[in-house]
Amino acid sequence: MTYFDNAATSFPKPNMVYDSIMEAMKDYGANPGRSGHKLALKIGRGIFDTRELIAKLFNIKNPMNIIFTFNCTESLNLGIKGILQRGDHVITTSMEHNSVLRPLTALKKDGIETTIVKGDLMGRIDPLDIEKSIKKNTKLIVTTHVSNLTGTIMPIEAIGQVAKKHGIYYLVDAAQSAGIYDIDVEKMNIDILAFPGHKGLFGPQGTGGLYIKDGLDLREMKQGGTGSVSHLLEQPDIRPDKYESGTPNGPGIIGLGSGIKYIFQQGIENIRKHEEELTKHFIEEVMKIEGVKAYGPLDINSQGAVVSINIGDEDSSEISYILDQNYDMEVRPGLHCAPLAHKTIGTFEQGVVRFSFGPFNTHEEIELGIRAIKEISKEI
Amino acid sequence: MTYFDNAATSFPKPNMVYDSIMEAMKDYGANPGRSGHKLALKIGRGIFDTRELIAKLFNIKNPMNIIFTFNCTESLNLGIKGILQRGDHVITTSMEHNSVLRPLTALKKDGIETTIVKGDLMGRIDPLDIEKSIKKNTKLIVTTHVSNLTGTIMPIEAIGQVAKKHGIYYLVDAAQSAGIYDIDVEKMNIDILAFPGHKGLFGPQGTGGLYIKDGLDLREMKQGGTGSVSHLLEQPDIRPDKYESGTPNGPGIIGLGSGIKYIFQQGIENIRKHEEELTKHFIEEVMKIEGVKAYGPLDINSQGAVVSINIGDEDSSEISYILDQNYDMEVRPGLHCAPLAHKTIGTFEQGVVRFSFGPFNTHEEIELGIRAIKEISKEI
Repeated sequence: MTYFDNAATSFPKPNMVYDSIMEAMKDYGANPGRSGHKLALKIGRGIFDTRELIAKLFNIKNPMNIIFTFNCTESLNLGIKGILQRGDHVITTSMEHNSVLRPLTALKKDGIETTIVKGDLMGRIDPLDIEKSIKKNTKLIVTTHVSNLTGTIMPIEAIGQVAKKHGIYYLVDAAQSAGIYDIDVEKMNIDILAFPGHKGLFGPQGTGGLYIKDGLDLREMKQGGTGSVSHLLEQPDIRPDKYESGTPNGPGIIGLGSGIKYIFQQGIENIRKHEEELTKHFIEEVMKIEGVKAYGPLDINSQGAVVSINIGDEDSSEISYILDQNYDMEVRPGLHCAPLAHKTIGTFEQGVVRFSFGPFNTHEEIELGIRAIKEISKEI
Repeated sequence: MTYFDNAATSFPKPNMVYDSIMEAMKDYGANPGRSGHKLALKIGRGIFDTRELIAKLFNIKNPMNIIFTFNCTESLNLGIKGILQRGDHVITTSMEHNSVLRPLTALKKDGIETTIVKGDLMGRIDPLDIEKSIKKNTKLIVTTHVSNLTGTIMPIEAIGQVAKKHGIYYLVDAAQSAGIYDIDVEKMNIDILAFPGHKGLFGPQGTGGLYIKDGLDLREMKQGGTGSVSHLLEQPDIRPDKYESGTPNGPGIIGLGSGIKYIFQQGIENIRKHEEELTKHFIEEVMKIEGVKAYGPLDINSQGAVVSINIGDEDSSEISYILDQNYDMEVRPGLHCAPLAHKTIGTFEQGVVRFSFGPFNTHEEIELGIRAIKEISKEI
């Protein structure tokens, strides 16, 4: 089996991730709460360790500014809805995932106005276009770091500068970049950073996170038991409790911590380099195949380990089905929950066949992929 | 180690739960999405199997009316906020957890009015008191099934009758009862049922669920990628997609399914009977100890496997600390995120030491607990 669907979820995970989850579940699978017993304290400490690892990875000074969530979609909903109010204006891009576009669409009825800056045919966003869209009531800019359709790497540092210059908050969706590309919330002027646990950070599904800058007060989406100031019926106004109601995914967060430890052990630059080499290999070979169209910048300095293609006019689902059935190769067809991105690059009708690589993929697997595409393109 | 904190999270889990989670993570840990490859379809099928098991357990006709969430707190927030609007009135009880009371407190500012029906000293709620509180604009009744403080079993069937008679929706918080007490949403007139995955259902942390009656349209809390109708920027209006945005906790839900299979294998009535016997044993012995006060109905026909006690006037945290340090026994002190329930039974200042039993506890462990309480009560 050849797994090329790492943009959906990384698979497999490092063994240390599996092991630490099982250990947490079997040996100390308690509910952390507060002022608890030995098991509760142990899992509570494990959760805090993961907070510290994330802080180190993204250069976040205070680990308590990191909130654990269910997934990146929840993080984005909390980041977007927690900050915007009636009368506010928000700028985003046509390259966003539905996890950004759908919350913004839902906010229209609450009197929040959105400007969608268009990408070019390679999915690139010009920071100047964002700057030109700023109005008096612009409160937030939301962009992805790496497109889940074209792999296009967005100029987040430049956009962060624009946001800072105009006193606007900047929310970055790191769904495809966390754990692979360097993210420094200080240097990049990122006020809110949403990330999944189960993609580049190698955690299990059911984990995600949100960094919220010091002093930026987001409205919480949920209230409930926090194990803190339990005598009050009001949600506590302390971090991370305010945003983390109910039982956390303790063993999952422990596993996420192991995933980040793995990244530090390997070196994020080595993981990135390996993915860049795989991507370069794939792009070079796939571009030689007649009748195949590849999307995105097609240059590893501007594109992450996501390469979308089409073969002739064939429906992307059909190609993916053949890859799955005849080649035991897992890719993802269709619209990838990014309809405006597909419109931007002109693939809204056909969809694309998305290949996304991870650190456990090999050059031999890339060759298998290329051979499969060659054979299919001849048959069609 | 003696674990008496099952009301916080069940520990350990049946081995088949651990095994199925690991198998899902290692063998088919993909992202289900839609129209996907073999691995995606396999985990998607596993998730659907869990939906069917839950449907069977609670007598839910259509498994698509079951929503997977992060935890019971999220389920309750979705159930409560999804239905209530400005001008509505809601009835709840003083025995609720902060996962009900805090969302209702937050809704005050949105013009939603709450009546809190008081329990008696044993934590019992009279359905007549609920009926008397009904106003013209009462839209929802929310009650727990089993108190997390006193173990008091609430008359949910009678309350369901009241709700039905007056055309009011009824939301039941099954945090302490799911998997132990019979729940039949049809027979009991439950319109919305919130439940955790990681307590009586033996799933892992990071799982929870919500049943929403056919035709009852709740507003979703989050929008995002659903893998369905991806060409639209609007959240799809189909179940369960409308309420399940982003990557689900696939392996966690598979594990939850195994937990429910375990319940069916053992027989829910056998699990309950074992817990009742343990509880009876504990109550009988603990009541004989001088200086110890036990709370709740202290009768297994009216009380689940949760028994809260105090020793003299000693602070509950101090007793719990001694149990942990000297007896390696895990209980939970303090307010249990249920401040009004503590006020109801008169333990708001002192807190209580909560013992909560699970199917893996034994009568020998109950004896250990009793012996420890005896020794501590003599020393104090």
